[in-house]
Amino acid sequence: MSKPQSSPAPEIARRLDEALLQPMPASRLVHISGSREDLKVPMREIRQSDTQSTSGPMPNPPVYVYETAATYSQPDQRPDPAVGLKPLRRGWIDERGDCEQLENKSSSFARDEAERIEPDLVFPASQLPRRAGSGNNVSQMHYARRGIVTPEMEYVAIRENCALDRMREAYEAAGLMQRHPGDPRGAKLPEIVTPEFVRDEVAAGRAIIPSNINHPEVEPMIIGRNFRVKVNANIGNSAVRSSITDEVEKLVWAIRFGADTVMDLSTGKHIHATREWIIRNSPVPIGTVPIYQALEKVGGVPEELTWELYRDTLIEQAEQGVDYFTIHAGVRLPFVPMTAKRVTGIVSRGGSIMAKWCLAHHRESFLYERFEEICEIMAAYDVSFSLGDGLRPGSIADANDQAQMSELRTLGELTKIAWEHDCQVMIEGPGHVPMQLIEENMTEELKHCHEAPFYTLGPLVTDIAPGYDHITSGIGAAQIGWFGTAMLCYVTPKEHLGLPDKHDVREGLVTYKIAAHAADLAKGHPGAQVRDNALSKARFEFRWEDQFNLGLDPARAREFHDQTLPKEAHKVAHFCSMCGPKFCSMKITQDVRDYAAKLELAEDQAIEQGMADKAREFRESGAEVYRKQ
Amino acid sequence: MSKPQSSPAPEIARRLDEALLQPMPASRLVHISGSREDLKVPMREIRQSDTQSTSGPMPNPPVYVYETAATYSQPDQRPDPAVGLKPLRRGWIDERGDCEQLENKSSSFARDEAERIEPDLVFPASQLPRRAGSGNNVSQMHYARRGIVTPEMEYVAIRENCALDRMREAYEAAGLMQRHPGDPRGAKLPEIVTPEFVRDEVAAGRAIIPSNINHPEVEPMIIGRNFRVKVNANIGNSAVRSSITDEVEKLVWAIRFGADTVMDLSTGKHIHATREWIIRNSPVPIGTVPIYQALEKVGGVPEELTWELYRDTLIEQAEQGVDYFTIHAGVRLPFVPMTAKRVTGIVSRGGSIMAKWCLAHHRESFLYERFEEICEIMAAYDVSFSLGDGLRPGSIADANDQAQMSELRTLGELTKIAWEHDCQVMIEGPGHVPMQLIEENMTEELKHCHEAPFYTLGPLVTDIAPGYDHITSGIGAAQIGWFGTAMLCYVTPKEHLGLPDKHDVREGLVTYKIAAHAADLAKGHPGAQVRDNALSKARFEFRWEDQFNLGLDPARAREFHDQTLPKEAHKVAHFCSMCGPKFCSMKITQDVRDYAAKLELAEDQAIEQGMADKAREFRESGAEVYRKQ
Repeated sequence: MSKPQSSPAPEIARRLDEALLQPMPASRLVHISGSREDLKVPMREIRQSDTQSTSGPMPNPPVYVYETAATYSQPDQRPDPAVGLKPLRRGWIDERGDCEQLENKSSSFARDEAERIEPDLVFPASQLPRRAGSGNNVSQMHYARRGIVTPEMEYVAIRENCALDRMREAYEAAGLMQRHPGDPRGAKLPEIVTPEFVRDEVAAGRAIIPSNINHPEVEPMIIGRNFRVKVNANIGNSAVRSSITDEVEKLVWAIRFGADTVMDLSTGKHIHATREWIIRNSPVPIGTVPIYQALEKVGGVPEELTWELYRDTLIEQAEQGVDYFTIHAGVRLPFVPMTAKRVTGIVSRGGSIMAKWCLAHHRESFLYERFEEICEIMAAYDVSFSLGDGLRPGSIADANDQAQMSELRTLGELTKIAWEHDCQVMIEGPGHVPMQLIEENMTEELKHCHEAPFYTLGPLVTDIAPGYDHITSGIGAAQIGWFGTAMLCYVTPKEHLGLPDKHDVREGLVTYKIAAHAADLAKGHPGAQVRDNALSKARFEFRWEDQFNLGLDPARAREFHDQTLPKEAHKVAHFCSMCGPKFCSMKITQDVRDYAAKLELAEDQAIEQGMADKAREFRESGAEVYRKQ
Repeated sequence: MSKPQSSPAPEIARRLDEALLQPMPASRLVHISGSREDLKVPMREIRQSDTQSTSGPMPNPPVYVYETAATYSQPDQRPDPAVGLKPLRRGWIDERGDCEQLENKSSSFARDEAERIEPDLVFPASQLPRRAGSGNNVSQMHYARRGIVTPEMEYVAIRENCALDRMREAYEAAGLMQRHPGDPRGAKLPEIVTPEFVRDEVAAGRAIIPSNINHPEVEPMIIGRNFRVKVNANIGNSAVRSSITDEVEKLVWAIRFGADTVMDLSTGKHIHATREWIIRNSPVPIGTVPIYQALEKVGGVPEELTWELYRDTLIEQAEQGVDYFTIHAGVRLPFVPMTAKRVTGIVSRGGSIMAKWCLAHHRESFLYERFEEICEIMAAYDVSFSLGDGLRPGSIADANDQAQMSELRTLGELTKIAWEHDCQVMIEGPGHVPMQLIEENMTEELKHCHEAPFYTLGPLVTDIAPGYDHITSGIGAAQIGWFGTAMLCYVTPKEHLGLPDKHDVREGLVTYKIAAHAADLAKGHPGAQVRDNALSKARFEFRWEDQFNLGLDPARAREFHDQTLPKEAHKVAHFCSMCGPKFCSMKITQDVRDYAAKLELAEDQAIEQGMADKAREFRESGAEVYRKQ
């Protein structure tokens, strides 16, 4: 089955919002090449204007940020959602010679899909799946442990550096390299990430690169505490609202605002077809919770779930290209009663499905009992584990309780088993946790789960602000990110209230990019402060456009500025709406600098001339203090 | 001059938005009486509906929150902005017999005000000012140090308790009293705040009650780290936008969303008149930065400022009733050159005005040199000091630098001097600080400023998100609040970009109420978790209306819910838009509880019957673990 050159784009493809496809302002896409022809890592170069000084204009260097939405912001290469993205990794996967293309899909459910769905909703250009050849293991961890640096590992190394290796001198010249010492809390952040460092981290299980061999479109992304903190965005339909177009739009919108991975949590109609559209159009890793779809297959009745049906679902999704699966294998029967006295019981959907199953059958969870079999499936496609926290607290009251901590220790046991299969693993974490209890979550996770990457939902630090839970959770996310969480799962303003639309996706993502970046700064990431420095310098020099463009959401910044001062002239004006044109605190700095320079000169002259008294006078008026700085 | 019974409300008063005056949903105002007839503290009682259980409806207790906007949410007592609020404290002030009503205003500028302004803009019902009688000191600290418990102290004690003393049993019965141990970092939070505790804290300088004798309308508010963390909202016009109506609306809006104090930072037209309208209509303490108005008086040219003019401005504002003044007396001449190498120089408006003055005259700051004279003015009206951080960092790069820390130590020296005059003092703090450097700000402040209350602006934990600085700063605010900051100055989404309107005031306030509450939880405030517990219980039981009403912004929560499920029936439905009606994780909890109860019963029976094997079987299936909980 070959990919068609072009296809009649169905309704789904035609309706994509134009705004999603506009390039970011003052930005240009550049590609940094790796060791091979087909390894080119997209970066977004943000241009800056010149500093206007008394001695003429001084250029400011462009600032580089990594860019997952590159495909969607090139006007001359507009993607066709009905065709999907280019299979960037196809060659890398095939040349390893350890997998085979199947004759047909292995999942019986997937094979019968055509009978269930209107042809209009079917992704037009799907391909046959690949799977590891008999006895082979195609996971990045497997390669890493055998000493192989894959193109995926090199790709993420280049991406992590954000061109810092090339730009260091230019940044230094512009004063953008200064940074505070970090407090990394045990993280080890190299000045420059090398492919070998990536391999070591993946081999040790401290980082993962979720990259299913059936998702060749993915641009590899690394998740580990010795790398930049990442952000996941959840999308997906539900029984009360369902539209493939909406979900594809949310995907593109999420990537545009910085999602490093996306989870498709659909529980509504057309789950298989929706997922196909999402994966084929996603340059970032896609995660799912397979039990959601399994539950739909049994009409929403948890007790009717079986291992066989679940297994078929895992294979169905693995062969579509899902990069990581949330698997709630830590929800063991003995832990379920521990939640009985909670204020909010079991709030994880997957957790409660499994709890219900365990109770109904009075049996240990089949996810726990069949864990080794699951590992074999994961290894055959390189699907990463995201070991789910089915017993996470759903309220401040339930934080860090026995149920949560018992499950966490089980996830640690399962991590060891998965690693015996060379499967990549990350560990999901809470949830709702008051600030003073956040650090314990991280230290316990590192201890019991052997430094496997932690992936937390917030945590929300209070329950009293429905409608603002992106903020209650962003506060906790920044802290746990600092302490070592590798990826933060965003929360939108609609959390607890309704389904997020694309505007909520934007709010949630910007909030979480803030949290992740604040965590990078606190850890002392070598390249993190460059962007802060550049933006602050632009702000101080009244380069309004640069200030907007260097930010996480240029359109929003511009819009807010223009509400008070709408004229174009005001964006080059050396004043703002707070103080107005007459007095400006920032202008005074030039006076201060002139004064400081004069003091320094005067002191030097006094010392030269042996005028001790004069020198002392200058010292007392501040010169000495200045020079000691 | 007596207050008129009613007045022709000018344009300003008539245009107040109706939405500002609506009662909060499911809320009733109650007053808790103190030891005297005229001491009644308003609380908002939030009603809850019953829990529907198999054994019939179970009532849930109302939840009490303190309410500064009480005056504005009683439909039968609609306030007339042209008359102002009732002078609650008039009797308390007069009965102390230590102040006198003046024949005329002491400030020459204030006396000449009528010549400068259109009569329409003048607040119609202003009164003559009061001042301490000769040799007297009317500050709350002065009374506290003499062992006097003022009605103001009793008022804040009652307010701080939020009826916890009366409601404890009802809360306990409903399971709302459980709480995690806090990590108070040296704060001492009593189970119940007594008036004597308040007096001790005020006497020691660890807390302040900003309450000018010329602001009898104020409902006293305590600011100190052994009390609930407070939030300040900044409002005020500027040269590019100016409207008294807008500012009065922002005041009311700010209080409605939980501002504990409000600063009027006007720098535009009609500063004196705008302030009069604000103070007369404000039940919360009002702060200002007098140097802003002083600068306007000299046409915006800092070097033309004089001590005499500044002094007249202090007296002008003190006699209007401003409760606290930001005074940048720590911006000393020798510190100014320390800012020369900063990325963003001096970003405090007051700081840069004084730096400019110092440089222009090559003299030490008159605020520093005249500090004792300033203390005498403050003591004569009980205006509290908010010692300004004129050298706070304006970017991540400049955080915790020598300039900032030198000024902080000076503020500590000045605190000692102010306390010699029995003046109340709080200390302003930054600003822009990466997370790993936040705690140092707090520990240095406590050390050098002798535990005077800290009052910080954020801090912002990154500079890269213009348009979202309520969030970048809310993250830092929650942390520094936990570490001991007594009051958080909010930041709105418009920070760095434009002037906030009332919608920005709402976003900023809710964000900061979240930060303050999260800090209270982390410190282990005895009453803080009640509201989280109540809201989480309501959420778990699908009491949608209760969930909305218990939150910080009920209208927003309802609006978000209704975007996905608009029907009224959905607000009593036992499902939400995330999972839909068929499967609900929360429903499973009843199964879990039934199972746990059955296990417990079976184990008990087995033990009773001496059936050791049977008992072991139950234990293995989870009963034992459950019972150990």
